Amino acid sequence: MHTVRNKKRLIARVRRVRGQVEAVERALVEERGCEEVIRAISAARGAINALAAEVLCDHVTEHVAAPRLAKGARVEAATELVLTIRQFIG
Amino acid sequence: MHTVRNKKRLIARVRRVRGQVEAVERALVEERGCEEVIRAISAARGAINALAAEVLCDHVTEHVAAPRLAKGARVEAATELVLTIRQFIG
Amino acid sequence: MHTVRNKKRLIARVRRVRGQVEAVERALVEERGCEEVIRAISAARGAINALAAEVLCDHVTEHVAAPRLAKGARVEAATELVLTIRQFIG
Amino acid sequence: MHTVRNKKRLIARVRRVRGQVEAVERALVEERGCEEVIRAISAARGAINALAAEVLCDHVTEHVAAPRLAKGARVEAATELVLTIRQFIG
Repeated sequence: MHTVRNKKRLIARVRRVRGQVEAVERALVEERGCEEVIRAISAARGAINALAAEVLCDHVTEHVAAPRLAKGARVEAATELVLTIRQFIG
Repeated sequence: MHTVRNKKRLIARVRRVRGQVEAVERALVEERGCEEVIRAISAARGAINALAAEVLCDHVTEHVAAPRLAKGARVEAATELVLTIRQFIG
Repeated sequence: MHTVRNKKRLIARVRRVRGQVEAVERALVEERGCEEVIRAISAARGAINALAAEVLCDHVTEHVAAPRLAKGARVEAATELVLTIRQFIG
Repeated sequence: MHTVRNKKRLIARVRRVRGQVEAVERALVEERGCEEVIRAISAARGAINALAAEVLCDHVTEHVAAPRLAKGARVEAATELVLTIRQFIG
């Protein structure tokens, strides 16, 4: 689905998200205060939203906007993108 | 920017969002309870997110994926889309 | 539901949200580009989230945490708060 | 910070979030399509928001609304709650 380089980048990013979720777990295990736990959750949520943005943007660049695409492939990828944007945002 | 038909649809949609924000205002003026006010705010927020999704999807269909586009116009529209997705989601 | 001062403040805030939704409508009517429309929507969404935060915080201060509350009233207001937080965030 | 029972429940919940983030990682490694990856991300985001709601609600119940609290402790916990709601939502 993604170029090798973009795939590596996305996987590095999702691993950072996992690290942030593990930080939330530690904060809960160590009985940190509400504010500190929510701050850790907020960071993880921000990272997961940024990951979603990158997945969508790679799809745009590689499968919808790239100049070399066959017409049918471009239309199909655009249909998937529209559906996915509606599900994620709308 | 949009086809005439899509423009009409988006404007009808943003007017519904305004109606929902006015409902929040009425709930505050009438001193409704917290739960009722937040429910009205939640509805308005859902409608505004759905509006954003439609604006992005029209841009995809009309300016990034349409078959008749010149290569330069498509690339430019895709660059704008990527930037906008990052700003709104990421 | 709210103190007079907080009520005024919340109503001023919801009117600013309405102004921001009207700015989105103008951007659509004037056929501004996707990025500019989404930026206006993003600002309106931020303002509506901030309004929700203030409504919740007023409820906490006036109905859940205030020292003078009867035990039953406090428990009832806390139950409403918990329900509302789950609906809005969870 | 939390009662033992609530702590266990929150930790079980954050572990489910981690499982969902791992599902996103697998979807990326296996090169699933954009829609499928975003659906997995959306599920993880929903779970992380629900976790935040539970952390806030436990704080309300245990530290702001509980009948047995000293006045100073209640005010302090309410101040932390207000700050945290503004940071997370507003």
